[in-house]
Amino acid sequence: MKVEYINPFISSLGTVFRTMLQCEVKRGAIKLKEGKKPGHPISGVIGLSGNAVGTVVLSMSEELAMKAASTMLLTETTEVSADVLDAVGELTNMVAGRAKSQLEELHLSVSLPNIITGSDHEIRFPSNVTPICVPFDTEWGALSLEVGLAPVLEPAAT
Amino acid sequence: MKVEYINPFISSLGTVFRTMLQCEVKRGAIKLKEGKKPGHPISGVIGLSGNAVGTVVLSMSEELAMKAASTMLLTETTEVSADVLDAVGELTNMVAGRAKSQLEELHLSVSLPNIITGSDHEIRFPSNVTPICVPFDTEWGALSLEVGLAPVLEPAAT
Repeated sequence: MKVEYINPFISSLGTVFRTMLQCEVKRGAIKLKEGKKPGHPISGVIGLSGNAVGTVVLSMSEELAMKAASTMLLTETTEVSADVLDAVGELTNMVAGRAKSQLEELHLSVSLPNIITGSDHEIRFPSNVTPICVPFDTEWGALSLEVGLAPVLEPAAT
Repeated sequence: MKVEYINPFISSLGTVFRTMLQCEVKRGAIKLKEGKKPGHPISGVIGLSGNAVGTVVLSMSEELAMKAASTMLLTETTEVSADVLDAVGELTNMVAGRAKSQLEELHLSVSLPNIITGSDHEIRFPSNVTPICVPFDTEWGALSLEVGLAPVLEPAAT
């Protein structure tokens, strides 16, 4: 994947966390995703399509998901309820949505978010795409952003 | 989700399995997806977008994934390798691709497939969408198809 595609997602994540959650994120070293991914038990997954196809995965600890949902829903949450998982989907949606508007030439549209849970779950990209993985730290715990995005050779007719 | 949206996915799955894998599938009772999903350890997930947004999940046993990959790759496979997971992604892609061509009015495009593994993984749809779940049986084991698809109120400008 083109490395310039990742920056809109990184800045979008920072903006969404800052404005929606009043939570500062600290970015770690960007790397190519290799093998199994670090074990965050909750992942939001969104498909992108248009003149490029791809996926955005926002993966986080249970603690971070509960803190984020508590802030978004204005109510304290102490278990990973359906509302918490919906909030993870909504966060992923906002991160993908803001980033796609900065990648205008790709005319991206986003799918419905899915939320994957399970302590040992692993999300794999097709092996012909090398997604980029960016770890982040916050006061609420760790999260990671994974993006795989590849231009479509033959853009879909509009 | 509109119930007429599910039939293209059901017929697409049957066609893909019959023509690509020479494998007959036997459909079980269609139901609304409720709570946790049946435990198939390998899922292919694809996002749909266009005049509707949605997700297709094709979930299967390890045995079925290995048999399908062996047939597609013309080589016997006895472990869940990267090639097997790629084959699951490709199958999901074909099922979603054939179905979208039968849902022309929705102008759907498909994202990159992701493959989710892990014995206890659970894929959740946002709680404002009720996906339809269809179980299938084959000589190679069980699989299930889950589709959540919702029209976009304001179709994206093309």
